[in-house]
Amino acid sequence: MNTPAPSAPGTALIAALQTSLGADQVLTASEDIIPYGFDGTATLKQRPLAVVFARNAAQVSAVLKLARLHHAPVVTRGSGTGLSGGSVPSTAAIVLCLVKMDRILELDTANLTLRAEAGAITQTIFDAASAAGLFYPPDPGSMKISTIGGNVAENSGGLRGLKYGVTRDYVMGLEVVLADGSICWLGSKCVKDVAGYNLRDLFVGSEGTLGVITQVLLKLLPQPAARQTLLAMFSRMDSAAETVSAIIAAKIIPCTLEFLDRKTIRCVEDFTHVGLPLDAEAILLIETDGHPAAATDEALKIEDLCRLHGATSVKRAASASEAALLATARRSAFSALARLRPTTILEDVTVPRSELAGMIRDVEAIALKHDLNIATFGHFGDGNLHPTILTDERNTAEMHRVELAFADIVSATLARGGTITGEHGVGLAKKPFLRRQLGDASYDLLKLVKRSLDPDNLLNPGKIFDL
Amino acid sequence: MNTPAPSAPGTALIAALQTSLGADQVLTASEDIIPYGFDGTATLKQRPLAVVFARNAAQVSAVLKLARLHHAPVVTRGSGTGLSGGSVPSTAAIVLCLVKMDRILELDTANLTLRAEAGAITQTIFDAASAAGLFYPPDPGSMKISTIGGNVAENSGGLRGLKYGVTRDYVMGLEVVLADGSICWLGSKCVKDVAGYNLRDLFVGSEGTLGVITQVLLKLLPQPAARQTLLAMFSRMDSAAETVSAIIAAKIIPCTLEFLDRKTIRCVEDFTHVGLPLDAEAILLIETDGHPAAATDEALKIEDLCRLHGATSVKRAASASEAALLATARRSAFSALARLRPTTILEDVTVPRSELAGMIRDVEAIALKHDLNIATFGHFGDGNLHPTILTDERNTAEMHRVELAFADIVSATLARGGTITGEHGVGLAKKPFLRRQLGDASYDLLKLVKRSLDPDNLLNPGKIFDL
Repeated sequence: MNTPAPSAPGTALIAALQTSLGADQVLTASEDIIPYGFDGTATLKQRPLAVVFARNAAQVSAVLKLARLHHAPVVTRGSGTGLSGGSVPSTAAIVLCLVKMDRILELDTANLTLRAEAGAITQTIFDAASAAGLFYPPDPGSMKISTIGGNVAENSGGLRGLKYGVTRDYVMGLEVVLADGSICWLGSKCVKDVAGYNLRDLFVGSEGTLGVITQVLLKLLPQPAARQTLLAMFSRMDSAAETVSAIIAAKIIPCTLEFLDRKTIRCVEDFTHVGLPLDAEAILLIETDGHPAAATDEALKIEDLCRLHGATSVKRAASASEAALLATARRSAFSALARLRPTTILEDVTVPRSELAGMIRDVEAIALKHDLNIATFGHFGDGNLHPTILTDERNTAEMHRVELAFADIVSATLARGGTITGEHGVGLAKKPFLRRQLGDASYDLLKLVKRSLDPDNLLNPGKIFDL
Repeated sequence: MNTPAPSAPGTALIAALQTSLGADQVLTASEDIIPYGFDGTATLKQRPLAVVFARNAAQVSAVLKLARLHHAPVVTRGSGTGLSGGSVPSTAAIVLCLVKMDRILELDTANLTLRAEAGAITQTIFDAASAAGLFYPPDPGSMKISTIGGNVAENSGGLRGLKYGVTRDYVMGLEVVLADGSICWLGSKCVKDVAGYNLRDLFVGSEGTLGVITQVLLKLLPQPAARQTLLAMFSRMDSAAETVSAIIAAKIIPCTLEFLDRKTIRCVEDFTHVGLPLDAEAILLIETDGHPAAATDEALKIEDLCRLHGATSVKRAASASEAALLATARRSAFSALARLRPTTILEDVTVPRSELAGMIRDVEAIALKHDLNIATFGHFGDGNLHPTILTDERNTAEMHRVELAFADIVSATLARGGTITGEHGVGLAKKPFLRRQLGDASYDLLKLVKRSLDPDNLLNPGKIFDL
């Protein structure tokens, strides 16, 4: 908490915000604003100048215009579940919170689209689509509380990336308020639309640094008619990796292809008692979906491939409730690990699928080298790993080793053609490594775009890169 | 042909290009450069200053640096099959032709990716994927001769948009040469990658105005195991439209859902003699694909829905060769129409699927109003219509009526929440209408991005908008 409590420099701005939005929509008292000083990322926090709630795009526009007038940075946030510090306030920032803009505005079953305000909860959107027999595939771990605007701003992933893609793949249109307060609509309900540059996709994943997303138009799919769930245990990580390669080589794209390593298996079993074998080196949770015959055929082929490549056992769920139980093992991984030590740092490196087994070995070697407890789970199908460092932020010596390990993991990822972040964003956490991944020309191009869209550098400044 | 033959102003630049690329890679003689003065768009042509061929990104970079030094515009092109004038040279431009950069560089079956130079022919890429049991879905009508770089620059569509999306959905990475000659790589082989702004998608569909695409990394899918093809005839267009709505409402997403109107049916039958009924008001060509049981089940359900909604007959192909024959009816639509009059102007408006029947009626009324021959076919599933104006560019009075009809079609499209271009791009043809579709704020944002990435306005200037 490096920022002093609100004082003279912000007084005029706060008064103007109160006049514009109503006094009750502007929080300034310490006890009110402290909860908005952090997100889901360990160790990062910063007190804002004030927290304001907008109810529509016009109010967002008013906030941006006032912030510009007073040269105050604006950090937009939804529920604050981010995992890279993207919504941690910058110094003396106005936090613009959109959770009160939470309406679903339209569900168009003829065109398979759903339009919602940015503050709508992702689970609510999923449920609204489901009620109409439709399917919104992106399922970030936080979806029960995270907002769709935050998902879009971070381009959130989830467990279904391999077959169904990520949030970006479902964004057809956006309403965005630009740094100067102008409101624009990008995209349309048309499945094909090439009228002008695709600026919609520029805002997806821009982490609040280019504009404020106030509305989203999402693409929906028909609900898959059937699903099959399998859990396969392996005594060697390489066997699990070979199995995954064999599944893809067999031209099967499962909708879920998740894995847990040995440490995670033990934690999860201790937490959930679902009956995982404590001697397994790796567990794969695999789901197929679609036409009933397709889902079943694929599940049978996958079962064969698992056994052929050395699975010590394969369970295929006989019912939806059994499937839910098997999926619990994966869904509870993070919560189970988070119980062990005071601080849980969730990594998010991603490599091409073919590099995944090697990358898991790299992480194990790095844990040994720095004497750290690192458990790994993640999305095997799309190469997205979550090495989870179990540590204690009060232990300075250990935190130093964590930083070294973190840097080593990044280096190993880049050496394997991977990315420093698959689904959590750059924010503050990955900022130091971005230039190395992108190279100078691409990195400079990011900054060029930022400077042209936000010339005063007031929209979530200091995230992704320093200007 | 408003440009004088190469003369003093370009001499120094041409000499520099010859030194840099080799004299045989620089064309300046009239008979050599005239073929590069137009693309697939009717009525548009302009002679370039010179045509140069690059063999790699370093040569592209050299060309851009020289062009900048000499303040010469650069118009990049592949095979020149564009349908919006996007690769028609601007005055005194250097045409940078990439057809000699046509290699497939890597087919990675473990990660389901293919990397190719920008000049590689799309059909060659499709065939290379097919040979490995993989599938590159985008199939623009020009794919036998168009280049992948051109497809990416225009974000080309095709017949499979409804289920499989468009070119953009398969671009994982790009090598791009920027206006200052710097070479950057955008994207990666990772299925999930949120490291920095998504600038890759900014270049997809940017029509050569932001940089020169020199390499593409494409996503591939497993080949669908089976396909079913149906041809349904309707005596009323509304019945065809209702059938399409019923198919979507039944949660079926066909891979192809094409239609022909009465005029097109007659032309196609006259051209192909495949046995289409001349009294039909509309024909739907519908294909399902995927697991054999899924493709068959869906085809049977679709057949029922067609009959239920008034199809006068439905043919389901019993073999691959019969399917190919049925598909011929749709694939030959443009060629069949192009035989009728000297000039064929292919429109490309797109509306939300639910507006399609109304839009087809609008086009019929507009044809009547302006006394023009307009046949319509297109992609019913994704709302992408190709009203085709059969005319003669030598007839000034008729061409004036064509322009009025063109403007009326655009107005009707926008009134229905559609887009002025679904898959052909803005180029020169749709430039006058873009601001109306986007609104001032979005339109100005396009220009802002252009000015920041191409400050001297030398990359395909005058396309999409005038600065």
